[in-house]
Amino acid sequence: MKKTELFEEHGFKDLTFSNYLVHESEHMKVINFNFKAGQKLPVHSHDLDGELNLAILEGEGEFLAADGATMPAKTGDVLVTEIREPHGVRAITDMRVLVTIAPPI
Amino acid sequence: MKKTELFEEHGFKDLTFSNYLVHESEHMKVINFNFKAGQKLPVHSHDLDGELNLAILEGEGEFLAADGATMPAKTGDVLVTEIREPHGVRAITDMRVLVTIAPPI
Repeated sequence: MKKTELFEEHGFKDLTFSNYLVHESEHMKVINFNFKAGQKLPVHSHDLDGELNLAILEGEGEFLAADGATMPAKTGDVLVTEIREPHGVRAITDMRVLVTIAPPI
Repeated sequence: MKKTELFEEHGFKDLTFSNYLVHESEHMKVINFNFKAGQKLPVHSHDLDGELNLAILEGEGEFLAADGATMPAKTGDVLVTEIREPHGVRAITDMRVLVTIAPPI
């Protein structure tokens, strides 16, 4: 077992969102994405079986989906999506997001 | 895709921790465990392949492991463990924990 203190171990970048690989195995990939206010992970998708969840650990922003759709995202919100379904994130305040992908891609 | 606002949709129970199934599929199981101060999920394990991660969304407590070992747990901490490795959680303050299990059990 392995503990990671994300709020201490992973900060923010000025130019673009910052991603930090927490864990990768045959079962799952766990990544912490940190966004400064205004930064975003554009809508994207991969033609692969599997799902991911995005949990907002801190901050406020929007989940992004196909055709320009958006959903408010705040601390404690979780989005579950298929990997092949278009998804993205945009930060309004500085925002920390934990992403778990299974199976890992 | 499905969004869940955990801080609104899932509260706490007096008698024991409260668990809320966020998502279950062939790929992953996502559960939100809420603990009032002093409540715990005792150390347990399952003899199955796979892993889980436990992300602290709010509060402070301890991750529990084999042989009485403990690790401090606070907002933004993530523990990754194999399903077959003994693990548990104890809350010191009210605590919200998001658990992702893959493959689902």
